[in-house]
Amino acid sequence: MKMYYIAVYDIADKRRLPRVLKIFRRFMFWIQNSSFEGELTEGQFKELKKNLKEVVKKEEDSILFFYSEKKKYISREVMGFEKNEITNFI
Amino acid sequence: MKMYYIAVYDIADKRRLPRVLKIFRRFMFWIQNSSFEGELTEGQFKELKKNLKEVVKKEEDSILFFYSEKKKYISREVMGFEKNEITNFI
Repeated sequence: MKMYYIAVYDIADKRRLPRVLKIFRRFMFWIQNSSFEGELTEGQFKELKKNLKEVVKKEEDSILFFYSEKKKYISREVMGFEKNEITNFI
Repeated sequence: MKMYYIAVYDIADKRRLPRVLKIFRRFMFWIQNSSFEGELTEGQFKELKKNLKEVVKKEEDSILFFYSEKKKYISREVMGFEKNEITNFI
């Protein structure tokens, strides 16, 4: 069963950022400078976290995951411009 | 009726940031460098957006709101350190 995830990251050292983004992109879609979203199985979420843990410094960086059983439970609204990498994403 | 909101902001010009944060803090709780959360009525959400629109530049900045009818629909998990301003917040 897939869950719907939103990840918001704050990476203190920008040199770590490309590696973090590369991992995220394998599992989720970039939605804004500092966040990704995607539907993942529990196994994929564990794999994502395992990969991220090898790169992020837990004393300096912070990644916040919000998730919901169903995507429909979470609505979204954008103020300003939307910077989707993938335009046909929704 | 209150809805549960998560706001993720990306403000291009850091000089605008203090004003943006000041507005957010009147309505929501800061949870990480780039995000706030809180339970708002529809009226409060409209008021928040109205205030933000006076400060953000829609061609450069982006604020993403996620919301759910019930807070319980959205779980959260943190990797790394949690930077709550208000420690007794949950």
